[in-house]
Amino acid sequence: MAKILVTGANGFAGQHLIKLLAPDYKIIGLINKSNLQNSNNVQYISGNILDQGFLTDLISKFQPDKIIHLAAIAPTWSPDPENIFKINLIGTLNLYQAVDNVNRQSMYIPKIVFISSAEVYGKTPNPEKITEENPFFPANYYGTSKVASDRLSYQMSQSSKLNITIVRPFNHTGPGQMKGFFVPDMASQIVEIENDQEKSELQVGNLQSIRDISDVRDIVEGYKLILEKDTEPGEAFNLCSGSGISMKDILGKLLKMAKKEIKIVEDPSRMRASEVPITVGDNSLFKERTGWEPKIPIDQTLEDTLEYWRGQHV
Amino acid sequence: MAKILVTGANGFAGQHLIKLLAPDYKIIGLINKSNLQNSNNVQYISGNILDQGFLTDLISKFQPDKIIHLAAIAPTWSPDPENIFKINLIGTLNLYQAVDNVNRQSMYIPKIVFISSAEVYGKTPNPEKITEENPFFPANYYGTSKVASDRLSYQMSQSSKLNITIVRPFNHTGPGQMKGFFVPDMASQIVEIENDQEKSELQVGNLQSIRDISDVRDIVEGYKLILEKDTEPGEAFNLCSGSGISMKDILGKLLKMAKKEIKIVEDPSRMRASEVPITVGDNSLFKERTGWEPKIPIDQTLEDTLEYWRGQHV
Repeated sequence: MAKILVTGANGFAGQHLIKLLAPDYKIIGLINKSNLQNSNNVQYISGNILDQGFLTDLISKFQPDKIIHLAAIAPTWSPDPENIFKINLIGTLNLYQAVDNVNRQSMYIPKIVFISSAEVYGKTPNPEKITEENPFFPANYYGTSKVASDRLSYQMSQSSKLNITIVRPFNHTGPGQMKGFFVPDMASQIVEIENDQEKSELQVGNLQSIRDISDVRDIVEGYKLILEKDTEPGEAFNLCSGSGISMKDILGKLLKMAKKEIKIVEDPSRMRASEVPITVGDNSLFKERTGWEPKIPIDQTLEDTLEYWRGQHV
Repeated sequence: MAKILVTGANGFAGQHLIKLLAPDYKIIGLINKSNLQNSNNVQYISGNILDQGFLTDLISKFQPDKIIHLAAIAPTWSPDPENIFKINLIGTLNLYQAVDNVNRQSMYIPKIVFISSAEVYGKTPNPEKITEENPFFPANYYGTSKVASDRLSYQMSQSSKLNITIVRPFNHTGPGQMKGFFVPDMASQIVEIENDQEKSELQVGNLQSIRDISDVRDIVEGYKLILEKDTEPGEAFNLCSGSGISMKDILGKLLKMAKKEIKIVEDPSRMRASEVPITVGDNSLFKERTGWEPKIPIDQTLEDTLEYWRGQHV
């Protein structure tokens, strides 16, 4: 059974990915706190991505055939840009140097998939069909940290001969995504209102922005396909649905699925214009290379997300 | 008299720039060691770019009208990538946050010019006329650190409303450039051979690579022009001659200028292929915006560089 190291294993995508990989792989899930139970093929190890010695020991001992690097500080978590650069850039550097350290002792070239982000493109002048060659206009520190680690991944695929493939997922959502993102924020509030006889109003901000949203389960299916595919070291791929939907339309769908009538109230304090009005990706390169096709329609994603939040409120 | 802060003031370009600016500006030159004598309009201050408090105090006190950020670890200086990212990325972040700190206390929006590098383009598939929209394929940690700080400069021009202009100089050389780069390495060795009766051979490595080389004095002329021009915050400009020359041709010119016959001997241990075979930039955007034209032909640059090294060997 092939061995795989998943960093950020307790994150949103990480948990869905491990569920998908568990039948076929022996998995080490690297997490930043020890709150997850091992299961049959999955062993969780808690450790610090900034500790290169720890990473070298881990990789030297486990010698994974494949590594997928998901660990990162998410856009909404930290107000401290230096910390974002440390975790997202220096953490990535540490992981690659750890692999390189093991490789110097004995020939060891695992397949590595680096999970970048569509936020590298940011405020691009051509936001409606973004290809991989599009220049980078990051709108926030998270986006800039992903530009840096995305290009570090390219660079070390050349300068250190590491077999790194870069994937740039666009927005994805589904059951298990924490609050701080649009869909879980809306879904969790709708469920709260369903459960509260006295509430019937939902406060909303600017709903104009258009995003390319996939189901997280389709996205991790893409991660699995690219992990199993031979690709040119340093290649980068968009992973996205290829079409855009407005936040307004998403909310309209969620409200239709709600168990009671809910009224939208515009809250002027939340009406600030989005940093990036439109982001829609071109997924043709990834589809062509892996045969990937998204399977879960957005309505299913939203239904499942509402069900997830209903489960949290029991 | 307008006030200007120059970081990296003791560097190669920094020293040439200060000579050019001194008649017209009150200058603070930030340096990392205290080895330079103040002169009429120029005051050197030594300090650490990683110390944000120091930078905030400096900017708050001096309130420069313009800032040019040259301080960076050069490609050949450090084998430690984490240190390169610290100085080149976090140092840049600190400078911008210091400006932002002062701006929060009292409206303060200086013109900032960030000196990026052509090394952001690296191993691009189209290396013979590189425009500003070209994607980034950095070949080494320095190039990746410049990708990160270049895009941080764009990002903070938007997210923090800082008035930052990005300049990407291609190769430049001339009197005062330290060894570790091709032209000073060759010129200094030629002068050594001129002064040594027993020597007449110069060991060389791979001379195939083609670069876009300007005189440092033309480059700092470009820095002065862009410092004095209104530009859109976040805009990026190539600064380069626009044509390529091989290392072989450069060496041929230097040897013709030498005071004695020198024989080239190919050293197989130095023959490793260049990371980036060709790099030639498109300078039309910068020329159009500033009226800049390079004035010093390469032969003059090489003559002056040889003279500089002859002066060092007295």
